[in-house]
Amino acid sequence: MNTEWVTTYGLVPTPVFTCVCPWFSIGIGGGTSGVSDMSGLRHHNRWIYCYMDQRLSALFSRRSVRKYTGKPVSEADVKALLEAGMAAPSASNRKPWHFVAVTEPARLAQLAAIHPHGKMLSSAGLCMAVCGDRDISPDFWVQDCSAATENILVAAAMLGLGAVWLGAHPRAERERDLKQRLGVPENVGLLCLVAVGHPDEYPDARTQYDEQRVHRNRW
Amino acid sequence: MNTEWVTTYGLVPTPVFTCVCPWFSIGIGGGTSGVSDMSGLRHHNRWIYCYMDQRLSALFSRRSVRKYTGKPVSEADVKALLEAGMAAPSASNRKPWHFVAVTEPARLAQLAAIHPHGKMLSSAGLCMAVCGDRDISPDFWVQDCSAATENILVAAAMLGLGAVWLGAHPRAERERDLKQRLGVPENVGLLCLVAVGHPDEYPDARTQYDEQRVHRNRW
Repeated sequence: MNTEWVTTYGLVPTPVFTCVCPWFSIGIGGGTSGVSDMSGLRHHNRWIYCYMDQRLSALFSRRSVRKYTGKPVSEADVKALLEAGMAAPSASNRKPWHFVAVTEPARLAQLAAIHPHGKMLSSAGLCMAVCGDRDISPDFWVQDCSAATENILVAAAMLGLGAVWLGAHPRAERERDLKQRLGVPENVGLLCLVAVGHPDEYPDARTQYDEQRVHRNRW
Repeated sequence: MNTEWVTTYGLVPTPVFTCVCPWFSIGIGGGTSGVSDMSGLRHHNRWIYCYMDQRLSALFSRRSVRKYTGKPVSEADVKALLEAGMAAPSASNRKPWHFVAVTEPARLAQLAAIHPHGKMLSSAGLCMAVCGDRDISPDFWVQDCSAATENILVAAAMLGLGAVWLGAHPRAERERDLKQRLGVPENVGLLCLVAVGHPDEYPDARTQYDEQRVHRNRW
Protein backbone atom coordinates (compact mmCIF):
# COMPACT_ATOMS: atom_id res chain seq x y z
CA MET A 1 0.00 0.00 0.00
CA ASN A 2 1.46 3.32 -1.06
CA THR A 3 0.17 5.58 1.66
CA GLU A 4 1.28 8.76 -0.03
CA TRP A 5 -0.94 8.14 -3.05
CA VAL A 6 -3.91 7.28 -0.91
CA THR A 7 -3.44 10.42 1.13
CA THR A 8 -2.84 12.67 -1.82
CA TYR A 9 -5.66 11.56 -4.04
CA GLY A 10 -8.10 10.13 -1.53
CA LEU A 11 -8.25 6.78 -3.27
CA VAL A 12 -10.05 3.84 -1.76
CA PRO A 13 -9.75 0.20 -2.79
CA THR A 14 -12.77 -1.15 -4.64
CA PRO A 15 -14.12 -4.58 -3.70
CA VAL A 16 -13.14 -7.43 -5.96
CA PHE A 17 -15.80 -8.92 -8.22
CA THR A 18 -17.82 -5.73 -8.52
CA CYS A 19 -17.30 -5.97 -12.25
CA VAL A 20 -18.58 -8.65 -14.54
CA CYS A 21 -16.13 -10.81 -16.43
CA PRO A 22 -18.02 -12.55 -19.23
CA TRP A 23 -15.38 -14.73 -20.83
CA PHE A 24 -11.89 -13.50 -20.09
CA SER A 25 -10.09 -12.95 -16.85
CA ILE A 26 -6.45 -12.56 -15.95
CA GLY A 27 -4.39 -10.72 -13.40
CA ILE A 28 -6.72 -9.94 -10.53
CA GLY A 29 -3.73 -8.18 -9.02
CA GLY A 30 -2.53 -7.03 -5.65
CA GLY A 31 -5.51 -5.05 -4.54
CA THR A 32 -3.96 -1.82 -3.30
CA SER A 33 -4.85 1.57 -4.70
CA GLY A 34 -2.50 4.12 -6.19
CA VAL A 35 0.13 1.71 -7.36
CA SER A 36 2.77 2.02 -10.07
CA ASP A 37 3.63 -0.86 -12.34
CA MET A 38 6.94 -1.54 -14.05
CA SER A 39 6.06 0.57 -17.08
CA GLY A 40 5.75 3.72 -14.97
CA LEU A 41 1.99 3.94 -15.38
CA ARG A 42 -0.14 4.79 -12.43
CA HIS A 43 -3.10 2.61 -11.64
CA HIS A 44 -5.41 3.78 -8.98
CA ASN A 45 -7.09 0.51 -8.56
CA ARG A 46 -5.70 -2.82 -9.57
CA TRP A 47 -9.07 -4.54 -9.30
CA ILE A 48 -10.09 -3.11 -12.64
CA TYR A 49 -7.80 -5.70 -14.20
CA CYS A 50 -10.34 -8.40 -13.52
CA TYR A 51 -12.10 -7.45 -16.77
CA MET A 52 -9.28 -5.94 -18.88
CA ASP A 53 -6.27 -7.62 -20.40
CA GLN A 54 -3.42 -6.59 -18.13
CA ARG A 55 -0.92 -6.61 -21.00
CA LEU A 56 -2.62 -3.54 -22.47
CA SER A 57 -2.80 -1.41 -19.33
CA ALA A 58 -1.01 1.45 -21.08
CA LEU A 59 -3.95 1.79 -23.47
CA PHE A 60 -6.64 1.48 -20.82
CA SER A 61 -4.88 4.15 -18.74
CA ARG A 62 -5.38 6.71 -21.47
CA ARG A 63 -8.38 8.68 -20.30
CA SER A 64 -9.56 12.18 -21.08
CA VAL A 65 -8.03 14.42 -18.42
CA ARG A 66 -9.32 17.99 -18.26
CA LYS A 67 -7.89 19.25 -14.96
CA TYR A 68 -4.24 20.18 -14.64
CA THR A 69 -2.02 21.49 -11.87
CA GLY A 70 -0.66 24.34 -13.98
CA LYS A 71 2.92 23.01 -13.82
CA PRO A 72 4.73 23.37 -17.17
CA VAL A 73 5.32 20.37 -19.42
CA SER A 74 9.06 19.74 -19.77
CA GLU A 75 10.82 20.12 -23.11
CA ALA A 76 11.79 16.44 -22.89
CA ASP A 77 8.11 15.50 -22.64
CA VAL A 78 7.12 17.84 -25.49
CA LYS A 79 9.75 16.14 -27.64
CA ALA A 80 8.64 12.68 -26.56
CA LEU A 81 5.02 13.47 -27.49
CA LEU A 82 6.15 14.67 -30.91
CA GLU A 83 8.17 11.49 -31.38
CA ALA A 84 5.08 9.48 -30.47
CA GLY A 85 2.88 11.36 -32.92
CA MET A 86 5.36 10.85 -35.72
CA ALA A 87 5.64 7.13 -34.93
CA ALA A 88 2.07 6.64 -36.20
CA PRO A 89 1.39 4.83 -39.46
CA SER A 90 0.14 6.81 -42.46
CA ALA A 91 -1.36 5.86 -45.81
CA SER A 92 1.48 5.06 -48.24
CA ASN A 93 3.76 6.40 -45.49
CA ARG A 94 3.11 9.95 -46.69
CA LYS A 95 3.26 11.45 -43.20
CA PRO A 96 1.05 14.48 -43.97
CA TRP A 97 1.19 15.78 -40.38
CA HIS A 98 2.42 19.00 -38.85
CA PHE A 99 2.36 19.82 -35.17
CA VAL A 100 2.07 23.23 -33.55
CA ALA A 101 3.30 22.86 -29.97
CA VAL A 102 1.98 25.80 -27.96
CA THR A 103 3.48 26.35 -24.51
CA GLU A 104 3.34 30.13 -24.03
CA PRO A 105 0.67 30.84 -21.39
CA ALA A 106 -0.74 33.86 -23.24
CA ARG A 107 -1.23 31.80 -26.39
CA LEU A 108 -2.77 28.92 -24.44
CA ALA A 109 -5.30 31.39 -23.00
CA GLN A 110 -6.13 32.61 -26.50
CA LEU A 111 -6.82 29.06 -27.69
CA ALA A 112 -8.92 28.43 -24.58
CA ALA A 113 -11.09 31.37 -25.59
CA ILE A 114 -11.54 30.12 -29.17
CA HIS A 115 -12.34 26.44 -28.67
CA PRO A 116 -15.87 25.95 -27.25
CA HIS A 117 -14.74 23.01 -25.08
CA GLY A 118 -11.20 24.26 -24.49
CA LYS A 119 -11.40 26.13 -21.19
CA MET A 120 -8.89 23.72 -19.64
CA LEU A 121 -6.22 24.98 -22.08
CA SER A 122 -5.59 28.00 -19.85
CA SER A 123 -4.23 25.67 -17.15
CA ALA A 124 -2.57 23.23 -19.56
CA GLY A 125 1.19 23.19 -19.96
CA LEU A 126 0.96 22.37 -23.65
CA CYS A 127 -1.50 22.52 -26.50
CA MET A 128 -0.56 20.38 -29.45
CA ALA A 129 -2.41 21.36 -32.62
CA VAL A 130 -2.42 18.37 -34.98
CA CYS A 131 -2.56 19.49 -38.61
CA GLY A 132 -2.47 17.69 -41.96
CA ASP A 133 -1.27 18.84 -45.37
CA ARG A 134 -4.06 18.14 -47.88
CA ASP A 135 -1.59 18.46 -50.75
CA ILE A 136 0.44 15.56 -49.35
CA SER A 137 -2.53 13.29 -48.60
CA PRO A 138 -5.90 14.66 -49.71
CA ASP A 139 -7.85 11.47 -48.96
CA PHE A 140 -6.17 10.13 -45.84
CA TRP A 141 -4.85 13.11 -43.85
CA VAL A 142 -7.72 12.88 -41.35
CA GLN A 143 -7.06 9.20 -40.66
CA ASP A 144 -3.29 9.67 -40.46
CA CYS A 145 -3.56 12.66 -38.14
CA SER A 146 -6.10 10.81 -35.99
CA ALA A 147 -3.65 7.94 -35.54
CA ALA A 148 -0.93 10.45 -34.64
CA THR A 149 -3.29 12.11 -32.15
CA GLU A 150 -4.12 8.79 -30.49
CA ASN A 151 -0.39 8.06 -30.20
CA ILE A 152 0.11 11.42 -28.49
CA LEU A 153 -2.73 10.71 -26.05
CA VAL A 154 -1.40 7.25 -25.19
CA ALA A 155 2.11 8.69 -24.86
CA ALA A 156 0.86 11.36 -22.47
CA ALA A 157 -0.61 8.65 -20.22
CA MET A 158 2.69 6.73 -20.40
CA LEU A 159 4.59 9.86 -19.35
CA GLY A 160 2.31 10.45 -16.37
CA LEU A 161 0.64 13.42 -18.06
CA GLY A 162 -3.06 14.02 -18.63
CA ALA A 163 -4.49 14.95 -22.01
CA VAL A 164 -7.72 15.40 -23.92
CA TRP A 165 -8.63 15.50 -27.63
CA LEU A 166 -10.46 18.69 -28.62
CA GLY A 167 -11.96 18.29 -32.07
CA ALA A 168 -11.75 20.96 -34.76
CA HIS A 169 -12.10 19.64 -38.34
CA PRO A 170 -14.73 19.29 -39.81
CA ARG A 171 -16.35 22.00 -37.65
CA ALA A 172 -15.62 24.72 -40.23
CA GLU A 173 -15.87 27.83 -38.09
CA ARG A 174 -13.86 26.38 -35.23
CA GLU A 175 -11.16 25.09 -37.58
CA ARG A 176 -10.96 28.45 -39.38
CA ASP A 177 -10.60 30.46 -36.16
CA LEU A 178 -7.92 28.17 -34.75
CA LYS A 179 -6.00 28.11 -38.03
CA GLN A 180 -6.10 31.90 -38.17
CA ARG A 181 -4.83 32.25 -34.60
CA LEU A 182 -2.00 29.75 -35.15
CA GLY A 183 -1.08 30.92 -38.65
CA VAL A 184 -1.79 27.56 -40.28
CA PRO A 185 -1.58 27.74 -44.11
CA GLU A 186 -4.66 27.49 -46.32
CA ASN A 187 -3.92 24.01 -47.71
CA VAL A 188 -3.43 22.52 -44.26
CA GLY A 189 -6.30 21.16 -42.18
CA LEU A 190 -6.39 21.50 -38.42
CA LEU A 191 -7.73 18.21 -37.14
CA CYS A 192 -7.74 18.91 -33.41
CA LEU A 193 -6.05 20.38 -30.40
CA VAL A 194 -4.62 18.14 -27.71
CA ALA A 195 -4.55 19.77 -24.27
CA VAL A 196 -1.73 18.33 -22.15
CA GLY A 197 -0.81 19.00 -18.54
CA HIS A 198 0.19 17.51 -15.24
CA PRO A 199 -3.03 15.86 -14.11
CA ASP A 200 -5.15 17.15 -11.30
CA GLU A 201 -7.73 14.39 -11.74
CA TYR A 202 -7.19 10.66 -12.13
CA PRO A 203 -9.93 8.79 -13.97
CA ASP A 204 -9.66 5.02 -13.60
CA ALA A 205 -8.29 2.97 -16.45
CA ARG A 206 -11.02 1.38 -18.54
CA THR A 207 -12.08 -0.17 -21.78
CA GLN A 208 -15.57 0.42 -23.05
CA TYR A 209 -15.78 -3.06 -24.50
CA ASP A 210 -19.28 -3.80 -25.76
CA GLU A 211 -20.06 -7.21 -27.18
CA GLN A 212 -22.88 -5.76 -29.26
CA ARG A 213 -20.25 -4.01 -31.40
CA VAL A 214 -18.43 -7.25 -32.17
CA HIS A 215 -19.26 -9.39 -35.19
CA ARG A 216 -17.58 -12.69 -35.90
CA ASN A 217 -16.50 -13.52 -39.47
CA ARG A 218 -19.30 -11.39 -40.91
CA TRP A 219 -21.75 -8.74 -39.70
CA MET B 1 22.55 -11.97 -24.80
CA ASN B 2 19.60 -14.13 -25.59
CA THR B 3 21.17 -16.63 -27.95
CA GLU B 4 17.90 -18.19 -28.96
CA TRP B 5 16.60 -14.95 -30.40
CA VAL B 6 19.76 -14.29 -32.29
CA THR B 7 19.72 -17.76 -33.74
CA THR B 8 16.08 -17.71 -34.64
CA TYR B 9 15.87 -14.33 -36.27
CA GLY B 10 19.45 -13.79 -37.34
CA LEU B 11 19.72 -10.45 -35.56
CA VAL B 12 22.98 -8.60 -35.28
CA PRO B 13 23.78 -5.75 -32.91
CA THR B 14 24.05 -2.35 -34.54
CA PRO B 15 26.96 -0.08 -33.55
CA VAL B 16 26.20 2.64 -31.07
CA PHE B 17 26.14 6.26 -32.25
CA THR B 18 25.17 5.42 -35.78
CA CYS B 19 22.11 7.56 -35.25
CA VAL B 20 22.02 11.28 -34.63
CA CYS B 21 20.61 12.59 -31.39
CA PRO B 22 19.94 16.31 -31.88
CA TRP B 23 18.71 17.43 -28.47
CA PHE B 24 17.43 14.54 -26.43
CA SER B 25 19.08 11.37 -25.28
CA ILE B 26 18.28 8.85 -22.60
CA GLY B 27 18.69 5.15 -22.05
CA ILE B 28 21.40 4.01 -24.39
CA GLY B 29 20.65 0.54 -23.02
CA GLY B 30 22.32 -2.81 -22.75
CA GLY B 31 23.36 -3.34 -26.33
CA THR B 32 22.24 -6.88 -27.01
CA SER B 33 19.88 -7.80 -29.77
CA GLY B 34 16.63 -9.69 -29.49
CA VAL B 35 15.83 -8.67 -25.92
CA SER B 36 12.53 -8.50 -24.07
CA ASP B 37 11.75 -5.70 -21.64
CA MET B 38 9.43 -5.86 -18.63
CA SER B 39 6.38 -4.92 -20.67
CA GLY B 40 6.68 -8.03 -22.82
CA LEU B 41 7.69 -6.08 -25.92
CA ARG B 42 10.42 -7.41 -28.11
CA HIS B 43 13.23 -5.09 -29.08
CA HIS B 44 15.68 -6.34 -31.59
CA ASN B 45 18.21 -3.71 -30.94
CA ARG B 46 18.41 -1.60 -27.85
CA TRP B 47 20.70 0.93 -29.46
CA ILE B 48 17.77 2.53 -31.22
CA TYR B 49 16.92 4.04 -27.86
CA CYS B 50 19.68 6.59 -28.24
CA TYR B 51 17.28 8.76 -30.24
CA MET B 52 13.86 7.76 -28.94
CA ASP B 53 12.31 8.34 -25.55
CA GLN B 54 12.56 4.95 -23.86
CA ARG B 55 9.36 5.50 -21.91
CA LEU B 56 7.38 5.20 -25.13
CA SER B 57 8.95 2.05 -26.53
CA ALA B 58 5.51 0.41 -26.84
CA LEU B 59 4.55 3.03 -29.43
CA PHE B 60 7.83 2.91 -31.35
CA SER B 61 7.55 -0.90 -31.52
CA ARG B 62 4.34 -0.66 -33.49
CA ARG B 63 5.45 -1.23 -37.06
CA SER B 64 3.61 -2.44 -40.13
CA VAL B 65 4.12 -6.20 -40.22
CA ARG B 66 3.03 -7.97 -43.40
CA LYS B 67 4.53 -11.45 -42.97
CA TYR B 68 3.01 -13.98 -40.60
CA THR B 69 3.77 -17.54 -39.58
CA GLY B 70 0.20 -18.73 -40.22
CA LYS B 71 -0.36 -19.66 -36.57
CA PRO B 72 -3.89 -18.75 -35.39
CA VAL B 73 -4.47 -15.74 -33.15
CA SER B 74 -5.85 -16.91 -29.81
CA GLU B 75 -9.34 -15.97 -28.67
CA ALA B 76 -7.79 -14.21 -25.68
CA ASP B 77 -5.77 -12.01 -28.04
CA VAL B 78 -8.79 -11.32 -30.28
CA LYS B 79 -10.68 -10.19 -27.19
CA ALA B 80 -7.77 -8.07 -25.97
CA LEU B 81 -7.53 -6.32 -29.35
CA LEU B 82 -11.25 -5.57 -29.23
CA GLU B 83 -10.88 -4.18 -25.71
CA ALA B 84 -8.04 -1.98 -26.95
CA GLY B 85 -10.08 -0.67 -29.87
CA MET B 86 -12.99 0.18 -27.62
CA ALA B 87 -10.70 1.95 -25.17
CA ALA B 88 -10.15 4.72 -27.72
CA PRO B 89 -11.65 8.17 -27.23
CA SER B 90 -14.52 9.31 -29.46
CA ALA B 91 -16.18 12.64 -30.13
CA SER B 92 -18.79 13.27 -27.43
CA ASN B 93 -18.06 9.68 -26.37
CA ARG B 94 -20.46 8.41 -29.03
CA LYS B 95 -18.44 5.27 -29.79
CA PRO B 96 -19.68 4.84 -33.38
CA TRP B 97 -17.48 1.80 -33.99
CA HIS B 98 -18.25 -1.79 -34.93
CA PHE B 99 -15.67 -4.52 -35.42
CA VAL B 100 -15.88 -7.55 -37.67
CA ALA B 101 -13.31 -10.04 -36.42
CA VAL B 102 -12.61 -12.52 -39.21
CA THR B 103 -10.68 -15.65 -38.29
CA GLU B 104 -12.04 -18.30 -40.66
CA PRO B 105 -9.27 -19.10 -43.19
CA ALA B 106 -11.65 -19.25 -46.16
CA ARG B 107 -13.00 -15.79 -45.37
CA LEU B 108 -9.50 -14.40 -44.84
CA ALA B 109 -8.60 -15.65 -48.31
CA GLN B 110 -11.67 -13.92 -49.76
CA LEU B 111 -10.67 -10.61 -48.20
CA ALA B 112 -7.11 -11.07 -49.44
CA ALA B 113 -8.50 -11.33 -52.97
CA ILE B 114 -10.59 -8.16 -52.63
CA HIS B 115 -8.15 -5.70 -51.05
CA PRO B 116 -5.48 -4.59 -53.55
CA HIS B 117 -2.77 -4.50 -50.83
CA GLY B 118 -4.21 -7.35 -48.75
CA LYS B 119 -2.40 -10.45 -50.01
CA MET B 120 -0.96 -11.06 -46.54
CA LEU B 121 -4.47 -11.64 -45.20
CA SER B 122 -4.38 -15.21 -46.47
CA SER B 123 -1.61 -16.01 -43.94
CA ALA B 124 -2.99 -13.76 -41.17
CA GLY B 125 -4.68 -15.26 -38.14
CA LEU B 126 -7.17 -12.42 -37.90
CA CYS B 127 -8.59 -9.64 -40.00
CA MET B 128 -10.29 -6.94 -38.00
CA ALA B 129 -12.59 -4.77 -40.10
CA VAL B 130 -13.06 -1.43 -38.35
CA CYS B 131 -16.43 0.11 -39.19
CA GLY B 132 -18.28 3.24 -38.09
CA ASP B 133 -22.00 3.98 -37.87
CA ARG B 134 -22.65 7.25 -39.70
CA ASP B 135 -25.99 7.62 -37.96
CA ILE B 136 -24.26 7.69 -34.58
CA SER B 137 -21.50 10.09 -35.58
CA PRO B 138 -21.77 11.49 -39.12
CA ASP B 139 -18.93 14.02 -38.74
CA PHE B 140 -16.43 12.19 -36.56
CA TRP B 141 -16.74 8.46 -37.26
CA VAL B 142 -13.57 8.46 -39.38
CA GLN B 143 -11.52 10.07 -36.63
CA ASP B 144 -12.99 7.88 -33.89
CA CYS B 145 -12.44 4.69 -35.88
CA SER B 146 -8.91 5.78 -36.76
CA ALA B 147 -8.10 6.20 -33.07
CA ALA B 148 -9.58 2.75 -32.39
CA THR B 149 -7.51 1.32 -35.25
CA GLU B 150 -4.31 2.82 -33.88
CA ASN B 151 -5.11 1.35 -30.46
CA ILE B 152 -5.53 -2.08 -32.06
CA LEU B 153 -2.19 -1.73 -33.86
CA VAL B 154 -0.36 -0.66 -30.70
CA ALA B 155 -2.08 -3.44 -28.76
CA ALA B 156 -0.97 -6.01 -31.33
CA ALA B 157 2.65 -4.93 -30.82
CA MET B 158 2.18 -5.14 -27.04
CA LEU B 159 0.83 -8.68 -27.41
CA GLY B 160 3.77 -9.78 -29.54
CA LEU B 161 1.65 -9.89 -32.68
CA GLY B 162 2.28 -8.16 -35.99
CA ALA B 163 -0.32 -6.06 -37.76
CA VAL B 164 -0.85 -3.67 -40.63
CA TRP B 165 -3.52 -1.06 -41.49
CA LEU B 166 -5.14 -1.65 -44.87
CA GLY B 167 -7.14 1.42 -45.86
CA ALA B 168 -10.63 1.20 -47.36
CA HIS B 169 -12.74 4.35 -46.90
CA PRO B 170 -12.79 6.74 -48.81
CA ARG B 171 -11.73 4.45 -51.71
CA ALA B 172 -15.35 3.92 -52.79
CA GLU B 173 -15.02 0.75 -54.83
CA ARG B 174 -12.79 -1.00 -52.31
CA GLU B 175 -15.06 -0.03 -49.42
CA ARG B 176 -18.16 -1.21 -51.29
CA ASP B 177 -16.69 -4.61 -52.18
CA LEU B 178 -15.47 -5.25 -48.65
CA LYS B 179 -18.79 -4.15 -47.12
CA GLN B 180 -20.65 -6.45 -49.47
CA ARG B 181 -18.43 -9.42 -48.63
CA LEU B 182 -18.73 -8.83 -44.87
CA GLY B 183 -22.43 -7.92 -44.88
CA VAL B 184 -21.87 -4.45 -43.45
CA PRO B 185 -25.10 -2.35 -43.45
CA GLU B 186 -25.60 0.59 -45.78
CA ASN B 187 -25.33 3.32 -43.13
CA VAL B 188 -22.05 1.98 -41.80
CA GLY B 189 -18.68 2.96 -43.22
CA LEU B 190 -15.81 0.52 -43.46
CA LEU B 191 -12.71 2.48 -42.54
CA CYS B 192 -10.07 -0.20 -42.90
CA LEU B 193 -9.00 -3.77 -42.39
CA VAL B 194 -6.32 -4.62 -39.87
CA ALA B 195 -4.39 -7.77 -40.73
CA VAL B 196 -3.05 -9.46 -37.59
CA GLY B 197 -0.84 -12.50 -37.21
CA HIS B 198 2.13 -14.00 -35.48
CA PRO B 199 5.00 -12.10 -37.02
CA ASP B 200 7.45 -13.61 -39.46
CA GLU B 201 9.34 -10.34 -39.87
CA TYR B 202 10.60 -7.96 -37.20
CA PRO B 203 11.05 -4.37 -38.28
CA ASP B 204 13.02 -2.30 -35.79
CA ALA B 205 11.21 0.10 -33.50
CA ARG B 206 11.30 3.67 -34.75
CA THR B 207 9.86 7.13 -34.70
CA GLN B 208 9.85 9.16 -37.89
CA TYR B 209 10.44 12.38 -35.97
CA ASP B 210 11.08 15.26 -38.32
CA GLU B 211 11.85 18.68 -36.92
CA GLN B 212 10.53 20.32 -40.08
CA ARG B 213 7.03 19.24 -39.07
CA VAL B 214 7.27 20.93 -35.68
CA HIS B 215 6.19 24.52 -35.08
CA ARG B 216 6.54 26.26 -31.75
CA ASN B 217 3.70 28.44 -30.48
CA ARG B 218 2.59 29.28 -34.02
CA TRP B 219 3.20 28.00 -37.54
